[in-house]
Amino acid sequence: MSHKTALFVGRFQPFHKGHLSVVKYLAFHYEKVVIGIGSAEDNYLPKNPFTAGERYEMIHRALEEEELNLSKIAIIPVRNINNYALWVRHVELMLPKFDVVYTGSSIVKRLFKDDRKYKVEEVKKKIMTSATKVRRKILECEKWEDLLPPATKNYLLSIKGDKRIRKIN
Amino acid sequence: MSHKTALFVGRFQPFHKGHLSVVKYLAFHYEKVVIGIGSAEDNYLPKNPFTAGERYEMIHRALEEEELNLSKIAIIPVRNINNYALWVRHVELMLPKFDVVYTGSSIVKRLFKDDRKYKVEEVKKKIMTSATKVRRKILECEKWEDLLPPATKNYLLSIKGDKRIRKIN
Amino acid sequence: MSHKTALFVGRFQPFHKGHLSVVKYLAFHYEKVVIGIGSAEDNYLPKNPFTAGERYEMIHRALEEEELNLSKIAIIPVRNINNYALWVRHVELMLPKFDVVYTGSSIVKRLFKDDRKYKVEEVKKKIMTSATKVRRKILECEKWEDLLPPATKNYLLSIKGDKRIRKIN
Amino acid sequence: MSHKTALFVGRFQPFHKGHLSVVKYLAFHYEKVVIGIGSAEDNYLPKNPFTAGERYEMIHRALEEEELNLSKIAIIPVRNINNYALWVRHVELMLPKFDVVYTGSSIVKRLFKDDRKYKVEEVKKKIMTSATKVRRKILECEKWEDLLPPATKNYLLSIKGDKRIRKIN
Amino acid sequence: MSHKTALFVGRFQPFHKGHLSVVKYLAFHYEKVVIGIGSAEDNYLPKNPFTAGERYEMIHRALEEEELNLSKIAIIPVRNINNYALWVRHVELMLPKFDVVYTGSSIVKRLFKDDRKYKVEEVKKKIMTSATKVRRKILECEKWEDLLPPATKNYLLSIKGDKRIRKIN
Amino acid sequence: MSHKTALFVGRFQPFHKGHLSVVKYLAFHYEKVVIGIGSAEDNYLPKNPFTAGERYEMIHRALEEEELNLSKIAIIPVRNINNYALWVRHVELMLPKFDVVYTGSSIVKRLFKDDRKYKVEEVKKKIMTSATKVRRKILECEKWEDLLPPATKNYLLSIKGDKRIRKIN
Repeated sequence: MSHKTALFVGRFQPFHKGHLSVVKYLAFHYEKVVIGIGSAEDNYLPKNPFTAGERYEMIHRALEEEELNLSKIAIIPVRNINNYALWVRHVELMLPKFDVVYTGSSIVKRLFKDDRKYKVEEVKKKIMTSATKVRRKILECEKWEDLLPPATKNYLLSIKGDKRIRKIN
Repeated sequence: MSHKTALFVGRFQPFHKGHLSVVKYLAFHYEKVVIGIGSAEDNYLPKNPFTAGERYEMIHRALEEEELNLSKIAIIPVRNINNYALWVRHVELMLPKFDVVYTGSSIVKRLFKDDRKYKVEEVKKKIMTSATKVRRKILECEKWEDLLPPATKNYLLSIKGDKRIRKIN
Repeated sequence: MSHKTALFVGRFQPFHKGHLSVVKYLAFHYEKVVIGIGSAEDNYLPKNPFTAGERYEMIHRALEEEELNLSKIAIIPVRNINNYALWVRHVELMLPKFDVVYTGSSIVKRLFKDDRKYKVEEVKKKIMTSATKVRRKILECEKWEDLLPPATKNYLLSIKGDKRIRKIN
Repeated sequence: MSHKTALFVGRFQPFHKGHLSVVKYLAFHYEKVVIGIGSAEDNYLPKNPFTAGERYEMIHRALEEEELNLSKIAIIPVRNINNYALWVRHVELMLPKFDVVYTGSSIVKRLFKDDRKYKVEEVKKKIMTSATKVRRKILECEKWEDLLPPATKNYLLSIKGDKRIRKIN
Repeated sequence: MSHKTALFVGRFQPFHKGHLSVVKYLAFHYEKVVIGIGSAEDNYLPKNPFTAGERYEMIHRALEEEELNLSKIAIIPVRNINNYALWVRHVELMLPKFDVVYTGSSIVKRLFKDDRKYKVEEVKKKIMTSATKVRRKILECEKWEDLLPPATKNYLLSIKGDKRIRKIN
Repeated sequence: MSHKTALFVGRFQPFHKGHLSVVKYLAFHYEKVVIGIGSAEDNYLPKNPFTAGERYEMIHRALEEEELNLSKIAIIPVRNINNYALWVRHVELMLPKFDVVYTGSSIVKRLFKDDRKYKVEEVKKKIMTSATKVRRKILECEKWEDLLPPATKNYLLSIKGDKRIRKIN
């Protein structure tokens, strides 16, 4: 295990099994894991239906259910700023120190690479694009429940997140 | 122990032994504790010398040193918004669900009280004002080291936080 | 007549006969009416061509022409804030007290419903979508004049609003 | 009576009898009056204790009590923007058209004068500074009730505005 | 030559030979030229890939290469503000005095025209749209190098701007 | 002469002979000079009376009068951002590349030092504090004219800057 801290950046709209498998991998290979909830102040939008607090609950409950060691995992919302090239520094200022960045977003990957201070690992697109798929399935009333960790699915239903997705589109 | 979540809101500039004793109390009496780092985007200012990430480290290291159960404590930066009366709702949207609010700030206390959704507990002023005292002592080169948990003190020195306080005033 | 205050939220780009019929209905059934001009700081954009001040004039002149009792109707611009879930509280802070919300926007309806403090009435889509139709007709130089109250139409022409719509698209 | 519209700009923290006498003067001499509630998004601060919505109520109830013709008076909150020299244009965009500006603020007076488009009238300092006096009296538990129009006083008490002023200072 | 100052407003994403020919024309016909780099805080976006500082370098190096008299040309970034109708005034406050406005943007043209203080000249669309063409050619790995002044092309390559455009799309 | 670019950061409220002597020194010792006008969006405030555009004129006219080589000196406004620790990166993104930073502000000095990428030179306090002195003298109607370069003084008088300082205090 590395004595390093991995940052996993995503929007988690919603947190799904693909995300969970990344967190499990990171929790196994790194001393500490920081999960940065991006676009934290976006919500009630077709691509960003859930608030940062709701996404915190979705992630936390899934990790608890999975019995991951929560004492080494931090979950922290990070808001967007309009000036993209400032965003890497903004993230550095708002989060505890990290060494490696994992992300499924090509723009986030590019920004951290151009900054040259961090090793950047791209999470396989196949996994990461499925949040879009989850939202689409919910919107079209297809079966989506198996794509989320059970605890996350239950939380989403408890806040009527499926209805919300259908109403705001 | 209550099955509730306590929110402890402060600026933690810096996190000191008074803050630590509050966290220990809350960790003992509540199922979960959320530490909200207020004024998260203020830094390098006389009253707010440290960044949110630095304050995260100050708090986290002190709790680790104290061997508190970190899996039930979340540390989350929360930025200010200019419209004060919106701030309570902003906090609700950015943090996981909480039931009781602890704070040493009379304005935060007032805002949560007027919102009527939360029980609000004021942390004794005597304890909470000492962050101002710590900054003043550092500024005037008096002895301040005993006022912080050892791990916090060491971190503050490692980032030359004492020098910073003297330069920006 | 109800002793309540109705809030009517819209962007009014521009204010048309459908909007006017809603205001007349509300003025008849409620003691007071607040017309909230949404997206108040958007202007000179294809979907938001007019400034808040211009929309105020469009509404006020139409109500005057209709001889509605202006002393019980308030017209107040409300700017957007990026964090949607904060918007309901933002509206509460900027406007006088209201009891019921009328809107043609499904997102506004959803936000107020999730807030659970207000009764929310959806204005029939058929009526409300016609602002889009008005802009499209102006853009394509079709006949649009009959869709607006005469006083609004005249004001729109006096500020060369039709030309503006064609130029900014 | 002039066929012009007078804009009266103030923060109205709170609206007092001095303000009311200005509104009465303007309602008598101008065809229309716009009352711009400045610093609309400031609240729960020692110099700005009340929200824009609360100040709207304070003004509206006083004018109603005074039986002024509310159909010719608009009350509209206007937020601050950080760039002062942009503020005049910001006001123009958010409000209906006006011709003359009345204010007790020397900075507002200066900004409108430098813009050269408006006649600017300074409201006598003696009257306007009394909002500060009202807040100070409330803070120090002196007799303040006679300084406000009765309806405003009652509203302020109903929202426990006197307590708020004492708590946030 | 006119004793006036011309303002040339564009986003310059990137600065190309069409832009350069406009600057040369203006440098010949006006006493002073101000080049306003619009959307200054947008970057790493498909339509705005380069930072304001990078665009400054692109322009400055091209003018130097062309041996234009740099002492009479100012290059100044201007950020966007969300309220479009405020933007003309914002530009006036941030730049030295100018008399005539040249732009390829129909919205910028419209805003300055409605303001009525400036003569506005539209730069021929044929020339100005080619920044979109340059970005598209880079994206699709077609030949684009001849569309930029050599010094600009070299700078763009030195910061790996071509790669960036392909990554962020 | 160094083949480097020096950045000189100040607020220049107003630009005075002390500032001018720094610019002359830098123009002599560096290949290029960038003058960053800080707090660009502050104006009509006691400590920041002049707009960025006005300060641009004050500086440009003084350099012209002094017959400095304007083709190697860039004058660029830079707005403040609330998050201080982001400001260095913000400056990097908005300005052309620079190597050394000169400033009279101890906070700016500290921020660039902590960033570790630049050599930072402090301009002697004695010189730099005199902008405060100039404003105070203007405010108190003492003799101030000799403290500014003649062209700057004339410009300040032409915009009635002395009156403005007296009105906004």
